Amino acid sequence: MKVAVIMGSISDMPVMQDAIDILKSFNIEVEVDIVSAHRTPEKLFDFSQNAHTRGISVIVAGAGGAAHLPGMVASMSPLPVIGVPVKSSNSIDGWDSVLSILQMPGGVPVATVALNGAKNAGILAAQIIGSSNKEILDRIITYKLELKEAVITASKNLKK
Amino acid sequence: MKVAVIMGSISDMPVMQDAIDILKSFNIEVEVDIVSAHRTPEKLFDFSQNAHTRGISVIVAGAGGAAHLPGMVASMSPLPVIGVPVKSSNSIDGWDSVLSILQMPGGVPVATVALNGAKNAGILAAQIIGSSNKEILDRIITYKLELKEAVITASKNLKK
Amino acid sequence: MKVAVIMGSISDMPVMQDAIDILKSFNIEVEVDIVSAHRTPEKLFDFSQNAHTRGISVIVAGAGGAAHLPGMVASMSPLPVIGVPVKSSNSIDGWDSVLSILQMPGGVPVATVALNGAKNAGILAAQIIGSSNKEILDRIITYKLELKEAVITASKNLKK
Amino acid sequence: MKVAVIMGSISDMPVMQDAIDILKSFNIEVEVDIVSAHRTPEKLFDFSQNAHTRGISVIVAGAGGAAHLPGMVASMSPLPVIGVPVKSSNSIDGWDSVLSILQMPGGVPVATVALNGAKNAGILAAQIIGSSNKEILDRIITYKLELKEAVITASKNLKK
Amino acid sequence: MKVAVIMGSISDMPVMQDAIDILKSFNIEVEVDIVSAHRTPEKLFDFSQNAHTRGISVIVAGAGGAAHLPGMVASMSPLPVIGVPVKSSNSIDGWDSVLSILQMPGGVPVATVALNGAKNAGILAAQIIGSSNKEILDRIITYKLELKEAVITASKNLKK
Amino acid sequence: MKVAVIMGSISDMPVMQDAIDILKSFNIEVEVDIVSAHRTPEKLFDFSQNAHTRGISVIVAGAGGAAHLPGMVASMSPLPVIGVPVKSSNSIDGWDSVLSILQMPGGVPVATVALNGAKNAGILAAQIIGSSNKEILDRIITYKLELKEAVITASKNLKK
Amino acid sequence: MKVAVIMGSISDMPVMQDAIDILKSFNIEVEVDIVSAHRTPEKLFDFSQNAHTRGISVIVAGAGGAAHLPGMVASMSPLPVIGVPVKSSNSIDGWDSVLSILQMPGGVPVATVALNGAKNAGILAAQIIGSSNKEILDRIITYKLELKEAVITASKNLKK
Amino acid sequence: MKVAVIMGSISDMPVMQDAIDILKSFNIEVEVDIVSAHRTPEKLFDFSQNAHTRGISVIVAGAGGAAHLPGMVASMSPLPVIGVPVKSSNSIDGWDSVLSILQMPGGVPVATVALNGAKNAGILAAQIIGSSNKEILDRIITYKLELKEAVITASKNLKK
Repeated sequence: MKVAVIMGSISDMPVMQDAIDILKSFNIEVEVDIVSAHRTPEKLFDFSQNAHTRGISVIVAGAGGAAHLPGMVASMSPLPVIGVPVKSSNSIDGWDSVLSILQMPGGVPVATVALNGAKNAGILAAQIIGSSNKEILDRIITYKLELKEAVITASKNLKK
Repeated sequence: MKVAVIMGSISDMPVMQDAIDILKSFNIEVEVDIVSAHRTPEKLFDFSQNAHTRGISVIVAGAGGAAHLPGMVASMSPLPVIGVPVKSSNSIDGWDSVLSILQMPGGVPVATVALNGAKNAGILAAQIIGSSNKEILDRIITYKLELKEAVITASKNLKK
Repeated sequence: MKVAVIMGSISDMPVMQDAIDILKSFNIEVEVDIVSAHRTPEKLFDFSQNAHTRGISVIVAGAGGAAHLPGMVASMSPLPVIGVPVKSSNSIDGWDSVLSILQMPGGVPVATVALNGAKNAGILAAQIIGSSNKEILDRIITYKLELKEAVITASKNLKK
Repeated sequence: MKVAVIMGSISDMPVMQDAIDILKSFNIEVEVDIVSAHRTPEKLFDFSQNAHTRGISVIVAGAGGAAHLPGMVASMSPLPVIGVPVKSSNSIDGWDSVLSILQMPGGVPVATVALNGAKNAGILAAQIIGSSNKEILDRIITYKLELKEAVITASKNLKK
Repeated sequence: MKVAVIMGSISDMPVMQDAIDILKSFNIEVEVDIVSAHRTPEKLFDFSQNAHTRGISVIVAGAGGAAHLPGMVASMSPLPVIGVPVKSSNSIDGWDSVLSILQMPGGVPVATVALNGAKNAGILAAQIIGSSNKEILDRIITYKLELKEAVITASKNLKK
Repeated sequence: MKVAVIMGSISDMPVMQDAIDILKSFNIEVEVDIVSAHRTPEKLFDFSQNAHTRGISVIVAGAGGAAHLPGMVASMSPLPVIGVPVKSSNSIDGWDSVLSILQMPGGVPVATVALNGAKNAGILAAQIIGSSNKEILDRIITYKLELKEAVITASKNLKK
Repeated sequence: MKVAVIMGSISDMPVMQDAIDILKSFNIEVEVDIVSAHRTPEKLFDFSQNAHTRGISVIVAGAGGAAHLPGMVASMSPLPVIGVPVKSSNSIDGWDSVLSILQMPGGVPVATVALNGAKNAGILAAQIIGSSNKEILDRIITYKLELKEAVITASKNLKK
Repeated sequence: MKVAVIMGSISDMPVMQDAIDILKSFNIEVEVDIVSAHRTPEKLFDFSQNAHTRGISVIVAGAGGAAHLPGMVASMSPLPVIGVPVKSSNSIDGWDSVLSILQMPGGVPVATVALNGAKNAGILAAQIIGSSNKEILDRIITYKLELKEAVITASKNLKK
């Protein structure tokens, strides 16, 4: 019951931290690393081919621009891979990372979340674990109740 | 170990059949239904709030245009929800369904796959089950080997 | 002769305030609330199914990103629903909220206005009331004359 | 209780017919005409300035390309104007008509529906009338029930 | 030999000033006014139908969002109309004004220039006058030589 | 009083023929040629630098994809240049030719018309000539009346 | 002096054949293979890391959708890599393959050509060889002359 | 073994400097100049037709908006031309320069890199030289090792 959160560059960390934080709040163990598809291809291979043998259940991978990291990990790992499109500095409004991660060919899915949606990637990883783990499932249910409470409180404050 | 495959309209079936077929090829039980966010909202509520109590592990939801089905199911179910953007007839090139499914707000993720990518949605559902089920994980590994073999055979045929 | 102005999050308020202000300037009663399609689905149901029985004539709903609120309200209420696409922080330039609100399937229309166009949503709500209310219709006519006067004054100032 | 359905060109008729049909099915009187913003500007003026004095409650206007008809009618009529973006032959995938109708400046709203969404324009016009007319409101409620029944029947057929 | 420079709102002036300045630098008389297609439709009619009888040769019209001014002027004036798409505050990245001006239907052209390209609109108006006026044509030729000189000087400075 | 209609490839002729036809219907002399910016650059130079000395008043240039012909002609000729974006076979939905022609830098305008809008390019060329030629201006006025009559006839037929 | 032409799937062959044909017409040796980034990652590694040691000078790689092949080859080979975005069946109008290939991060360039532009990829490969090979450079010069002749002939035929 | 780095305007220098810097770091001689396709067409011709006779091996050309410089140079030079789309001030999010450079017609390729990707243009130019120059090839290999080391160091720092 461990989730790997990897990213293509240290510059993706401010976005990806949200995934780490929410996973820790669910008491899920997180392993964090930088794995660049384009600069450390050997590490990419090693990581992808062995993650499922090291006790990792889900992989969250974030990258920007022509974002190949999530798809390449998915091509080599049997685990579910969640891709986070990161809006990097020279991005064309984020479309490049969104399409590079989303539009995977038949046979190699990447579970894509919203642009800069690392928090949702963390929640989705927890839901995947929760689909076979009653304790985590209950935490998800509690989390959704908290979301609801926050909106109801905001609504009450508005009416005051 | 059951996957629900739902869709907003019977017209989405030709696309969504790919998800059903691949899941069955992995020997995973599939429940198929039509649940329209916009035309059967009560059924949407009922389905979403109870799926996890009926033995379903993963939900695959396909819809086109302003596709609200995957996100609304995700808002009410603690299970991982996979969204399939379907390119429907009056779609603006598919951008509408892609963005309506992908760009979910913080707290409510949908695992989005490529436009018309129902096959990949099925594989992703299998991977989610496989993340805690050794037998399914092995089937995924075998499936990836078959993909590789097909490419190697095509390469050999090309060189003849 | 009451208009409900709802929004998916308190963070939409700076945009949606324009709808409230213009409606009040027309002496139309306004009810304001936060109803999140994704975080308070039960409230969404309750609000949508009962609005027309509580004396509300028109519903204005604003939301950003994968904006499901206007469409979901429209699926459950017989009243005209006006959707305001809000350009939220991680939006892909606003395209996501525009397409999620505009591209509704046949049978469930949402009257969509421009990105961040809450003021126009308020005017449109007034026009809908005015279509069967002579007093409000006259206010609309007066409002359009004021718009005209402002342009004519600006034109005169320019020529000085 | 009459709706005017106008269009910029006779070539828009195959799309706009859906609005006429659905309105007639609700027993709402429909007036149909061709009013071209670019080729008959005088008629545009005359139509727009007088529609509300001739017993018309709502105007549905369809146009393609740089679609100015809905917005220009809205600039001169105090009535609610529903705009239908029509995907014409040399359109850039429909984006031109969508944006030309949707992105109206502050003060002059157009209630925009989906690309080629004439049917929804008709339903929206009925809902606007229904907001002050109990009989039409009841027909809308019945219509929504019929939509629901159709989905439930499709679901049953699927399970056979 | 007079050019009219009009705009939909005084807020377009910072962009449109470039057209005025360059025309004056060519010693071409300029008439400036605010004509709003949506707020002063009568003035729009009056201006468009009479411009050619008042000694105006070319009309430059700037507007943002769903920009109907250039096309509506073109529908009523036999003169060449140059449209300047203005990137206004709630624009969807300028696409709305570009497509609303560019994609005119057959029979009613608008000579569209780049987003915020008022300077080029002014030059184009001068070129139109120059096509039948030797003096202005010579000024255009001189202007192009000056552009060339500026680049050659920049090149020389770079090499120092 | 002659208009040059040029195009980058003979494959653009089916689109560009509309410009030739409408100009001839106005009794304006037309010179037609193929001038490829990318394959006959010397001819491009020769044509552009001398057109205004050969009695040509306006240049209409059509091209597809990365369409450089209109802009390059405009860089070397003092005449007004009208650009027609042609939707060619491997175009990305026409966006490439539209943006390559429209977004010219300051100093070098191209009067851009709609995608495949060769007919409007011809009318615009006539309007440019008409801005200093009473006879052609009158023909434009007559042409606009004919457009109006056609719409009025269509409207009458509709009502029968 | 050998060029490798690789593609992600045999279904890319109809597009990629153009690269092979034009290279052969320049008498350049061509090696053709299918290398799938997502299905044969080991082959991808092996091919990319060794191509420059096997006498290959330039690599042309074509792929569609979330096209990772050109970028992944570029990450592991020191040779110039030319990427051909292929418009595949479920592509979002080709934008996915264009952006996945073009928007590479700093350090790892891919020389991208137009959508389906395999012919140009072949010519570019020849130009790269020609930059240090007088014979091939002369063939390129001859090829450009032939392009020019074809346009001049078309122009002559047009004038007959 | 010399690379020419040219740009359409001195305002492109902040972006293009990256190409110059990386080429110098590889000890490759660089010639820098401003050549405007639209303002100095004669210089464009002269530069393009003679670059290969002056010892230049590769041309890097940067330009923004309707960026014609790279394509026009490519039309007249037999050398490989690398195009850098520059995001200029009135650009439509960079799409204009990307498409104007990328979508070249058959016969005239431009090796396009990412938006503002001048550094990658420099590396690609070095790779082109390296494809026939062992010393430069080795520098590229070393450069890629340095990229890898930087990522590995960042990964180590992260884990501390």
